[in-house]
Amino acid sequence: MLYRSPCFIPSCCGLKVCQVLKSCSKPVDPSARWRCCPNENLLGFLIKSEDFSLCVLQYLPSTAVSTTLQLQELRYQMHLMSISAYIIPGTDAHLSEYLAPRDARVAFMTGFTGSAGTAVVTQSKAALWTDSRYWVQAERQMDCNWELEKDVSVSSLAEWLISEVPSGGEIGFDPFLFSLSESQFSAPPVSLDAQSSDENEVFVDANKIMCLFAERSWQTKVEHIRNQMRDNPYEPTALLLSALDETAWLFNMRGNDIPYNPFFYSYTLLTMDEIWVFLHMNRLTDELKAYLNSSCTGPLCVQLKNYEDVLGHLKTYVAQPGVKVWIGTEYTNYALYEIITPQDKLMTSSYSPVLTTKAVKDDKEQQILRDAHVRDAVAVIQLLMWLEQAVPKGTETELSAAEYVNKCRSQQKDSRGPSFETISASGPNAALAHYSPTEETNRKLTVDEMYLVDSGGQYLDGTTDITRTVHWGTPTAMQKEAFTRVLMGNIELSRTIFPSGTRGVNMEMLGRRALWQVGLNYGHGTGHGVGNYFGVHEWPVGFQSNNVPFRPGMFTSIEPGYYKDNDFGIRIEDIVVIVPVNTKYGHNYLTFETVSLVPYDRKLIDTSLLSSEQLEWLNNYYKTIRELVGAELDKQKLKEEKDWMLKHTEPFSSASVCSSSLTVVALAIALLHNLV
Amino acid sequence: MLYRSPCFIPSCCGLKVCQVLKSCSKPVDPSARWRCCPNENLLGFLIKSEDFSLCVLQYLPSTAVSTTLQLQELRYQMHLMSISAYIIPGTDAHLSEYLAPRDARVAFMTGFTGSAGTAVVTQSKAALWTDSRYWVQAERQMDCNWELEKDVSVSSLAEWLISEVPSGGEIGFDPFLFSLSESQFSAPPVSLDAQSSDENEVFVDANKIMCLFAERSWQTKVEHIRNQMRDNPYEPTALLLSALDETAWLFNMRGNDIPYNPFFYSYTLLTMDEIWVFLHMNRLTDELKAYLNSSCTGPLCVQLKNYEDVLGHLKTYVAQPGVKVWIGTEYTNYALYEIITPQDKLMTSSYSPVLTTKAVKDDKEQQILRDAHVRDAVAVIQLLMWLEQAVPKGTETELSAAEYVNKCRSQQKDSRGPSFETISASGPNAALAHYSPTEETNRKLTVDEMYLVDSGGQYLDGTTDITRTVHWGTPTAMQKEAFTRVLMGNIELSRTIFPSGTRGVNMEMLGRRALWQVGLNYGHGTGHGVGNYFGVHEWPVGFQSNNVPFRPGMFTSIEPGYYKDNDFGIRIEDIVVIVPVNTKYGHNYLTFETVSLVPYDRKLIDTSLLSSEQLEWLNNYYKTIRELVGAELDKQKLKEEKDWMLKHTEPFSSASVCSSSLTVVALAIALLHNLV
Repeated sequence: MLYRSPCFIPSCCGLKVCQVLKSCSKPVDPSARWRCCPNENLLGFLIKSEDFSLCVLQYLPSTAVSTTLQLQELRYQMHLMSISAYIIPGTDAHLSEYLAPRDARVAFMTGFTGSAGTAVVTQSKAALWTDSRYWVQAERQMDCNWELEKDVSVSSLAEWLISEVPSGGEIGFDPFLFSLSESQFSAPPVSLDAQSSDENEVFVDANKIMCLFAERSWQTKVEHIRNQMRDNPYEPTALLLSALDETAWLFNMRGNDIPYNPFFYSYTLLTMDEIWVFLHMNRLTDELKAYLNSSCTGPLCVQLKNYEDVLGHLKTYVAQPGVKVWIGTEYTNYALYEIITPQDKLMTSSYSPVLTTKAVKDDKEQQILRDAHVRDAVAVIQLLMWLEQAVPKGTETELSAAEYVNKCRSQQKDSRGPSFETISASGPNAALAHYSPTEETNRKLTVDEMYLVDSGGQYLDGTTDITRTVHWGTPTAMQKEAFTRVLMGNIELSRTIFPSGTRGVNMEMLGRRALWQVGLNYGHGTGHGVGNYFGVHEWPVGFQSNNVPFRPGMFTSIEPGYYKDNDFGIRIEDIVVIVPVNTKYGHNYLTFETVSLVPYDRKLIDTSLLSSEQLEWLNNYYKTIRELVGAELDKQKLKEEKDWMLKHTEPFSSASVCSSSLTVVALAIALLHNLV
Repeated sequence: MLYRSPCFIPSCCGLKVCQVLKSCSKPVDPSARWRCCPNENLLGFLIKSEDFSLCVLQYLPSTAVSTTLQLQELRYQMHLMSISAYIIPGTDAHLSEYLAPRDARVAFMTGFTGSAGTAVVTQSKAALWTDSRYWVQAERQMDCNWELEKDVSVSSLAEWLISEVPSGGEIGFDPFLFSLSESQFSAPPVSLDAQSSDENEVFVDANKIMCLFAERSWQTKVEHIRNQMRDNPYEPTALLLSALDETAWLFNMRGNDIPYNPFFYSYTLLTMDEIWVFLHMNRLTDELKAYLNSSCTGPLCVQLKNYEDVLGHLKTYVAQPGVKVWIGTEYTNYALYEIITPQDKLMTSSYSPVLTTKAVKDDKEQQILRDAHVRDAVAVIQLLMWLEQAVPKGTETELSAAEYVNKCRSQQKDSRGPSFETISASGPNAALAHYSPTEETNRKLTVDEMYLVDSGGQYLDGTTDITRTVHWGTPTAMQKEAFTRVLMGNIELSRTIFPSGTRGVNMEMLGRRALWQVGLNYGHGTGHGVGNYFGVHEWPVGFQSNNVPFRPGMFTSIEPGYYKDNDFGIRIEDIVVIVPVNTKYGHNYLTFETVSLVPYDRKLIDTSLLSSEQLEWLNNYYKTIRELVGAELDKQKLKEEKDWMLKHTEPFSSASVCSSSLTVVALAIALLHNLV
């Protein structure tokens, strides 16, 4: 007996369903199956509950991962240690965004592989918190052991804990995996008991760390940071660097411990007279040791220590009288913070001076980052041209397109691979803002669906990140309107003029406003910093509330979007650099200059929605693409790509109804004259 | 010997100068005087320093207040108590914005009378922190004992203290005058030692407290707040109300302890079973006691206590086992906070549930607040009409205009006086964003200067606040452009559509963007909440970073401006209500509806700068003024005012060059047809 009608859930296509329907009143055939999604061959189960008045629906998509065994084991360990709840954050001891496989704790426990998520397990419940970019993905990957919590505020997690943990219950977590700022949430309601779960073997890649010859020597950078320590009224005597890109930037070094990011596990303790760097010693070449002056002990000599020694060394340093350690609370883990005691030996700011200094690229760094984007544009243009030709033949898929763009990038000068896993998403898959194709989900590309590709490259001179959305057939009116409004958001934000020191979070609504106008929106941030051969999400620059004010020389992405569940997804992402601009009356005003140089899909632009200022911006942008990418295509002798680029950057007629009518007006006046 | 040239400071007109010029190398005649400002008859002094290579310039405007005696006495007391620095905040024990005279500590010590400022005194220095609205005013009012600090961030004050207070030195402050959130600033660097300076006699106005018959009874409100306490997962057992409008709102009561605000000194401690209100008992009538059910002790009986008993009563309450007191950190002073210990008896949120509930007006409250604005518009129109006639005669001043508008308001139904001291400012005086005229600064109104009037009224049904800027002669091109861009900011923000729950701080740049475009800006916030016969600055609604997200039924001002030092000031302020709006695709979208109903000065509007959407908004707004204020003017039989209003709300021709040219196009096409 198939209860198709009461249990049919039209919106569940491909999503996990663990639902209790109270409306099913008839007895249930335990073998009954129901169809989840009309257009897909996906079936779920009706499970008879002990109480006959309930139907329990359970449907697990093929992408779901069984986590029953992991949970059993964790709960047994929690029982032994008398822990009521255990928190598993999606990061490592350096609060990295991208993780080495050994640190993929959330994925191991939950099945969810998105780059942001926190899991909590009690004896009876298991819940994952992740933001709206990942809701669909999480529902596709988690089994019915897990519930998804959509409110990612700290208070949501705290309130959940309060309601689930009995009074006096203990909450376990690994202090190495919590930043100081995160650890605060549970202070008032429950007592914390630190329990380290990190007993994995450290996996160390045998590859050696390299050094990068940047414009600024590491000695110059160290002096610059020491000056900031000296000038600080709180008079810190030492600076502790925990984020992996801090040590890498300060010493112009790169490694490969983390996928897509040229980082290596490291900490630095910098004082006025000494420098200690903690890393895996087997990663160092003799040349690198010489480069770091590691054989001496003066102010510009780097004393190399084992990675594992940081805790002990910091303890010894803090025990001295008169010391004060400066830490950035966003990237220092709780285990290190705990050591710096009493309070008057601690000095905090959200970000270390290394991160805030790194955020502003100097002239040379700006130039090479721009150059990398010109070469990167060639690779993306190659992809788009090839897809335009190949897709109508019906032979290509999300995976083959991702592979193609990676290949195109690898042929560019100084390429060092992709800067993140390519998001190559067709039709409904693109509605998952951060979907990446797998063998199971791989979708054929067709002229009937929109296609979104968000990809980037690592180059020795810079990191890139760009998203284009295209349609090879006939878009619907709604798709065209949504695309145009996303583009309007991108342009409106890019062209805005603002005083130096304005925060991104106070302007990012310009990226949304054209969408809001018709009741559309997107559930992710509007942009993030990027680096010079560094992280593709480089903090603290961007449009989030915890990003720093904009200054000239910072780079950020601008990436509004729109996602229609089970239908399509649109995102238009460019990297921009913050530049000074002359204004009629004022000084110290800034604007954005777009350094990603790939045309948008003309077919999806409804120019009648654009203001004349937006059209003018677009035509100027296309002129820049023609100049810069045109020259590069010539240099690389890519004739066909050049023609394709020229065709796709034809200026739009400045044809608002308005100005074209002015010509007619002139004509009319001429005619009137003739009549008189 | 007059060293006019090295010591001449062209920008000091009317401002304090306490400057050491190292460039004066010649011996100085102690009697030398110098002219500060070329167009004004203001003279300063060259004071010979002991070191002959220095000239000390000192010029005190007539508005400066001598503070030498106060500082001597304070420093003597600090010496006796071994305090290195003493902090004097500009607030009272309820963290009120407007102060009763007894609480005007900053004004007494510094001479500065602005509504926001914090003073710090050491044995050798005295400094005042205030925001950019008040910089000019502070320099006009403070003598050379005081330095002005322009960075009002907490870290600026903290860093100043760190550099001025010797290690181990003690800092004194009155814990009743610091909110919990403010007190944090000095925690890490220096040890705090609480010293109360509040030994003034409490001044109690003999007038009785009144009760207001609002739509919601106080019993309904109390139940509503108790439900929020019950639903809160932290399970508070009591709520402490410190802000004066919290107790006043909860019990529908009003008093007159604070200028311009119908508040009375009070605290409330609310539990599930009991209510204690702390106030000056001699202010209560028998009727009010009966209204509050003060003779019983049940859950809906108000137990009245002396104002001074709050500390003792709270201590007793907190000593009980199992209690937890909920406080709003923004409005609870440190002295009360300190008592709630240990930490697990404390629950904090930025704002109490009373403040967040009060922020959303119900249907009835919205309607009466709109009605108050219609009557208020009549008063402002009367002022503007009268000025238009009187100013060319040369008989009126800033003070007489302020008096006139107060008189106009007092004639409106249910008027209860102005809601703040009227800002009536001509020419350069208007460049001081929050200037109010005094006998010393009073300026004649002329057709040669711009005039800014920012005023508001208290009515039994609502509080109003509106600013208009006008010019009775011929504005300069720059004045017209600046005014138009301020207006564009007002319109652009007012007409924007946004998802429910968007924060004001993330949209307020729309009020600035047209100014930023040409390098102009303003140094104050973009808007603040208003109440129903309450504060004219009603938190927590508005566009600041610590305001709450917008919900339908909230009221806020929108008030962009532009101020040109020593020249003119522009501000255009309207009150708006947040209302739901239908969009093409989405739900739960909101927009602003303007409830201030007074036309803008047509002479100052350059319509060629406005977008067609802005022009359309403006014409619709004028249509609303004609409807609503027109009917009220008819009702009040104000024929001349009606004519004036109609003249000033003539629709602007939707004449962007563009659409008017369309008519010509049609004509041209017709002509072409004839020719064929």
